[in-house]
Amino acid sequence: MSNTTGRLFRATTFGESHGEMMGVVIDGCPPGVVIDLPQVQADLDRRRPGQTHLTTPRDERDTLRVVSGLFDGSTTGSPLTIVFENQDTRSRDYQGTKDLFRPGHADYGYHMRYGVRDHRGGGRASARETISRVAAGAIGRQILQDRFDIDVIAWVSSVGSIEAAIDVMEISRADVDSHPTRCPDLRAAKEMEANIQAAKAAGDTLGGCVSAVAKGVPAGWGAPVFDKFEADLAKACLSLPACKGFEIGSGFAGTQMKGSDHNDEFTLDNGLVSSPTNHAGGVLGGITSGQPIQIKCAFKPVSTHFKQQRTVTKDLDPVEFKNVGRHDPCVLPRAVPLVEAALWLTLTDHYLITLSLGRS
Amino acid sequence: MSNTTGRLFRATTFGESHGEMMGVVIDGCPPGVVIDLPQVQADLDRRRPGQTHLTTPRDERDTLRVVSGLFDGSTTGSPLTIVFENQDTRSRDYQGTKDLFRPGHADYGYHMRYGVRDHRGGGRASARETISRVAAGAIGRQILQDRFDIDVIAWVSSVGSIEAAIDVMEISRADVDSHPTRCPDLRAAKEMEANIQAAKAAGDTLGGCVSAVAKGVPAGWGAPVFDKFEADLAKACLSLPACKGFEIGSGFAGTQMKGSDHNDEFTLDNGLVSSPTNHAGGVLGGITSGQPIQIKCAFKPVSTHFKQQRTVTKDLDPVEFKNVGRHDPCVLPRAVPLVEAALWLTLTDHYLITLSLGRS
Amino acid sequence: MSNTTGRLFRATTFGESHGEMMGVVIDGCPPGVVIDLPQVQADLDRRRPGQTHLTTPRDERDTLRVVSGLFDGSTTGSPLTIVFENQDTRSRDYQGTKDLFRPGHADYGYHMRYGVRDHRGGGRASARETISRVAAGAIGRQILQDRFDIDVIAWVSSVGSIEAAIDVMEISRADVDSHPTRCPDLRAAKEMEANIQAAKAAGDTLGGCVSAVAKGVPAGWGAPVFDKFEADLAKACLSLPACKGFEIGSGFAGTQMKGSDHNDEFTLDNGLVSSPTNHAGGVLGGITSGQPIQIKCAFKPVSTHFKQQRTVTKDLDPVEFKNVGRHDPCVLPRAVPLVEAALWLTLTDHYLITLSLGRS
Amino acid sequence: MSNTTGRLFRATTFGESHGEMMGVVIDGCPPGVVIDLPQVQADLDRRRPGQTHLTTPRDERDTLRVVSGLFDGSTTGSPLTIVFENQDTRSRDYQGTKDLFRPGHADYGYHMRYGVRDHRGGGRASARETISRVAAGAIGRQILQDRFDIDVIAWVSSVGSIEAAIDVMEISRADVDSHPTRCPDLRAAKEMEANIQAAKAAGDTLGGCVSAVAKGVPAGWGAPVFDKFEADLAKACLSLPACKGFEIGSGFAGTQMKGSDHNDEFTLDNGLVSSPTNHAGGVLGGITSGQPIQIKCAFKPVSTHFKQQRTVTKDLDPVEFKNVGRHDPCVLPRAVPLVEAALWLTLTDHYLITLSLGRS
Repeated sequence: MSNTTGRLFRATTFGESHGEMMGVVIDGCPPGVVIDLPQVQADLDRRRPGQTHLTTPRDERDTLRVVSGLFDGSTTGSPLTIVFENQDTRSRDYQGTKDLFRPGHADYGYHMRYGVRDHRGGGRASARETISRVAAGAIGRQILQDRFDIDVIAWVSSVGSIEAAIDVMEISRADVDSHPTRCPDLRAAKEMEANIQAAKAAGDTLGGCVSAVAKGVPAGWGAPVFDKFEADLAKACLSLPACKGFEIGSGFAGTQMKGSDHNDEFTLDNGLVSSPTNHAGGVLGGITSGQPIQIKCAFKPVSTHFKQQRTVTKDLDPVEFKNVGRHDPCVLPRAVPLVEAALWLTLTDHYLITLSLGRS
Repeated sequence: MSNTTGRLFRATTFGESHGEMMGVVIDGCPPGVVIDLPQVQADLDRRRPGQTHLTTPRDERDTLRVVSGLFDGSTTGSPLTIVFENQDTRSRDYQGTKDLFRPGHADYGYHMRYGVRDHRGGGRASARETISRVAAGAIGRQILQDRFDIDVIAWVSSVGSIEAAIDVMEISRADVDSHPTRCPDLRAAKEMEANIQAAKAAGDTLGGCVSAVAKGVPAGWGAPVFDKFEADLAKACLSLPACKGFEIGSGFAGTQMKGSDHNDEFTLDNGLVSSPTNHAGGVLGGITSGQPIQIKCAFKPVSTHFKQQRTVTKDLDPVEFKNVGRHDPCVLPRAVPLVEAALWLTLTDHYLITLSLGRS
Repeated sequence: MSNTTGRLFRATTFGESHGEMMGVVIDGCPPGVVIDLPQVQADLDRRRPGQTHLTTPRDERDTLRVVSGLFDGSTTGSPLTIVFENQDTRSRDYQGTKDLFRPGHADYGYHMRYGVRDHRGGGRASARETISRVAAGAIGRQILQDRFDIDVIAWVSSVGSIEAAIDVMEISRADVDSHPTRCPDLRAAKEMEANIQAAKAAGDTLGGCVSAVAKGVPAGWGAPVFDKFEADLAKACLSLPACKGFEIGSGFAGTQMKGSDHNDEFTLDNGLVSSPTNHAGGVLGGITSGQPIQIKCAFKPVSTHFKQQRTVTKDLDPVEFKNVGRHDPCVLPRAVPLVEAALWLTLTDHYLITLSLGRS
Repeated sequence: MSNTTGRLFRATTFGESHGEMMGVVIDGCPPGVVIDLPQVQADLDRRRPGQTHLTTPRDERDTLRVVSGLFDGSTTGSPLTIVFENQDTRSRDYQGTKDLFRPGHADYGYHMRYGVRDHRGGGRASARETISRVAAGAIGRQILQDRFDIDVIAWVSSVGSIEAAIDVMEISRADVDSHPTRCPDLRAAKEMEANIQAAKAAGDTLGGCVSAVAKGVPAGWGAPVFDKFEADLAKACLSLPACKGFEIGSGFAGTQMKGSDHNDEFTLDNGLVSSPTNHAGGVLGGITSGQPIQIKCAFKPVSTHFKQQRTVTKDLDPVEFKNVGRHDPCVLPRAVPLVEAALWLTLTDHYLITLSLGRS
């Protein structure tokens, strides 16, 4: 279980952080969609390490290579496979931690589950795995944008205790990318940046939240019971490395409202059903309402800090250690394209499910 | 899609609120487990409507009837099917809303998705569907408790702005059930109760949060990438009616911590790997760590309040209406067994997945 | 695994031969299809025991009861559930064989797999389970016939060594049902009938073949690699009780042809692509060609004969025994609706998969 | 749908005949299994084109490259990915047929299904896709042989009308490989060889049957209803290119037996349950019996012959054409490792399913 996501738009990812290759097999692509590969690469570049002084200096070009599924530039209905060679690996950085369980990491769980563990760069548990999701999300984006006027925009809405003030309806991807923090509230962004740099200087790390909106999604996508749109989306987000929380619409804050305030009334807007408020966050009972889908995800502070830590070894000896190597002091800017990918993947899958409904 | 949950421990639910029967087919039960049916009924009774003055007066006995899968009181490996007759339905209560889209409900989405809608009691979108999940969760509980010293306890941790103060390690199911709010902090419980009664008197509704803990779960359950334990659990929770948020461990609050504070150090406790803190909430990288699994779910205020509301009809006419009928002013007490069921279902599925791993 | 079939049109069956109820939850029904329940019952009646002197005298009315998924006579997109009460069970007939492994039956495998076994009437292994498949197939039939001019007809093409001579393109369901053997070649039918009666008189049983044709299936249904149409169909047939072989088109006989004779040339027939021959049996490379789908299934002689047999008990003691009870001397006439159901289920699933392809 | 096989041991294949790469992602490998890569390569070499004068001269080394999932030579529980570069492609050979529908091939179905088609070498419909299955089967073999004394042997049992006489219990892989036809009955093998050479000289092609046996499979693997062992196996075989028929045990011939002759009595053999006959072919009611699994698959004559053929073009013009290029005159010798792979994949999947059963 676990290396495939989606029911009809299915992405199967493979590869370890310090192995030969990362990759993804994307099955279920509708045929005849022209794929703009430079755009896919651009989506990938937003996730790439080494983009700014705020992210890890591991320098991977992450140049995509499509090895199947395209013919004359279009999808054929066959699995579209994208691979990435790993290049700038420094496995020696992990020599000192290969026999101990790094706190905050998956080492101990893997050891208990599998009895064997590729310690180099976290192996399969590395956030490097997300390159494959971003690639698949970029393909999903092109499929949907070929047919709908849908867009997905995510941004950093908080780092530590610094929160951004954002007008969701006005936000653009250019705004998001205008600052290395990917926080489009520049006043907050500067504070975040300063805090990240201070944490980095102290060998420490920060967490924060990514918010996202999907506009233009038609009403009627989703499903009623177990596979509710918001349930699938929560799963997609919680499966991102370091994600510890998810909310849609009013989320946790909405629990303090009264029902008569929380319900979004239906009105007519140019003859279309609309709502002046959006506490629901674009879904009702698992099915999209046509209003913007609004979510927020919590990311814990990066587990790899550079302070002294206590833990135990595989042989159950208590030890102290310090991490070495190249790591992000704050994962938030690079989490933005991951949350977008989670949305694109979920949207594309539900689009195909909706087609399969067989409405006559 | 949507009426089946689980990969190896699979529950398929069926039935509409005002149809003949609700039910669940539970496939993947290990054979040879003695099922204590009175205990299953007791688990179901905690969800039953009409339990206290705080819940809907719809009076359903919800007596379980096992129609397949047991032989001499034990599971056989065949699908275990449990059905419930619907009895106290009052479909006339829904006559006035059958042609309009109730705000906060799934009516509009269903209409757009299916073009047809069983309006009686919300049809398949009714929270009555959760009876089937609680039944399946109760079976999962018995399978796991046959083999492990696992227990799952959920409780109401907030109603509106009233928050409970709870010592997670000391909580018991008896404490939870000692007050009709299912909040074991009796001081907070009384405030909650008063607020619910005030809301009910005003024709309004309240939301809140359910927290839960699973103790005794072995380390090593879960999966690394898409099917992380916390991802599956988030999906199970967000698929519950009215759930708008999920967090595990430190959740959203943890985003304000530093990495050096957030990491849970590994120590030895009587020769076993343990952690003095549990910011991770019992999972690391998708795999259980052996620490208690701790989650919190946000439930919006009930959408069926009794104040005047504006909406539109199927024919796109603006209208005003008021709900009639029998409804919970606050779903939180009855959400407690739902969150427990989400945990039992996810745990049982991951237990079987772990077996399938084929560790030699 | 195992009690659900289909990916998008999914039938989950439950119930034991001598349990309370048989049933099926049919998920993935397109909404808005008017279901003709008397026609579903008529399809079920063709499978019913006790129809003629050639079948088991177990007398089950097998009256369907729809307990969910219909509203005002139409599908709603919710799971359509059909149940059947078991009535004429005689569990005492199985008392003598409860501790031994009946040759030709699944007893030994169940014992080794599950360690426990509902011996009454074969429990879940009973052919009575197929009532649920026939019900699901009957629903699939109505979905497809609502939209396409597709029909599926199966017939008994051999019993023992007696083979029927049939013109596939001329066959009708009325012809098939005109004789209790369900062999529309009346000359062969009479010989089959005599042989079945002779076998019955001798306490023995016969096998044979069911052939089937599906006409009107559009070109382009299916899938290229693992889920080829013929592969899914072979699985559906081999999952029928007593089925030991499957062929499509030229099948085993076609292995003796030369490629230049076997290839079906494409020609134009009233402007449509057609083929004068159909060695392919309506599929090429996993995808339908628009030609009739033609298959044949082998059914072994019924395992429950009434002669003395040797076997071993659960305690590994050699014993001799004789079956008692009511059984078909030849399953072929009642296998006809099973093969039709396998076709309807496979066709409906592939129809929905084709919709999900997202051809723009 | 369609590019992944298996439920717990899952192989996802990708790549087109004349694309960059073929490959397979194998998910669900138990951790800690040492993989003997030269043995995997040896299994692949048995499928390789260009082995003998009886097979296509397309010369592909088909050297495997493992790009993920192994660590220090062992499986880790992460997806094991194997890729193969395509080298000796001659896409020009397909220039003449790119706009017409080759009889016997999937061209027309693909055109109707996808509206677009990679005509070069058949694209995804090419038998070259089977390299990925053989790779996955070879991994499954090593997993099973790490734990069980199971072996699978397939052989060519007929070519055209020439049938081999084989003692199933005595056959060895060395015998099978001792003749380029892979028929271990050397008298028949010589006739087959002569017939294949004659067909090749005439520009024609032949079909035939592959038989196989799996020995040492424990009793109790499989499943009762839809996912019967023989049903999954039939699907795996019918999903092989050119396969038109499948039988297990007595198959079609068994339909002419009486029940009293067909039933395999259970006896004791050194204290173990056994059967002196094996008409069942090693499965009863979907579950293995511990007896050898015996199957036979029908393969139609190769569709690419070199005689003049009539067909129509995409624009519905009738045309005549002749194939050019390099093709097998008879696919049977190379089908042997494919049928073995189908068995290994099905066995490994059912082994893991059996583990997940949770027998305590």
